[in-house]
Amino acid sequence: MPEDRKPKPVRRAARGRRGWESVEVHQYKQDQATPYEGVTRQVLFRDSRLKGELRYFEVAPGGYSTLERHEHMHAVLVLHGAGQCLVGDEVQKIGLHDLVTVPPWTWHQFRAAPDEPLGFLCLVDAERDRPQLPNESELEGLKASPAVRDFLGGR
Amino acid sequence: MPEDRKPKPVRRAARGRRGWESVEVHQYKQDQATPYEGVTRQVLFRDSRLKGELRYFEVAPGGYSTLERHEHMHAVLVLHGAGQCLVGDEVQKIGLHDLVTVPPWTWHQFRAAPDEPLGFLCLVDAERDRPQLPNESELEGLKASPAVRDFLGGR
Repeated sequence: MPEDRKPKPVRRAARGRRGWESVEVHQYKQDQATPYEGVTRQVLFRDSRLKGELRYFEVAPGGYSTLERHEHMHAVLVLHGAGQCLVGDEVQKIGLHDLVTVPPWTWHQFRAAPDEPLGFLCLVDAERDRPQLPNESELEGLKASPAVRDFLGGR
Repeated sequence: MPEDRKPKPVRRAARGRRGWESVEVHQYKQDQATPYEGVTRQVLFRDSRLKGELRYFEVAPGGYSTLERHEHMHAVLVLHGAGQCLVGDEVQKIGLHDLVTVPPWTWHQFRAAPDEPLGFLCLVDAERDRPQLPNESELEGLKASPAVRDFLGGR
């Protein structure tokens, strides 16, 4: 939904499949320089009269979001499927309706299970900074933890 | 979660029932002067570093939220069950994952189906005004529409 186009009061979820009838599906990143795999993005609520935005991301089985950090926070609720998340130096399994908090300046990545998609809502501030990618030394630092190394390697 | 208490990165959804293990369940309104029935409220994300808040409301079968309006917007996603909503002068059935937009200063109310709860996420600005209740003449105005009159009467 482009900002400020007046939405209908009710927009229907698609029946018999995931997603919404009237919400466009986008590639996760326009920028092809950032590594990710099998992720789509839908903007469920974006409005100049609202200070937060609600987006829906879906990671295909075995796929992953970009490993990144930024000043703005993420508030996440899993809506479909299962997977794992990295937040800081913690790796955790996540499933239906689990809540994930990504504090400011915290490395994070979401991975779908090998055999299930991972669909999640993500609340952010409408005004927010752009993500940073890890440099080599930061990546090595993250991999100091065996759990994080396994996670980043998709194991 | 009280504001600013550092949350764990992952908070689990309860398995085998609705809700979350570590999120307190509140009465919908502290103020008993506002009419509602069978509604609970849970704050999923509230943080001083986030400009939006995500709450979960659950309306028991046959119950309803307060009929009200305010300057701030509501952005709603149905998470469980089914029911109906009034937004302005429109009454619509809502079900799983449907999206409801309540623009500023728009009368609205949510009703669960007679035999199903209605659970929904609601995104609002953290800083927001207090709701107004309709006076008698505003209520009469709303009831000019037969669909709205039936909805308000719980039919």
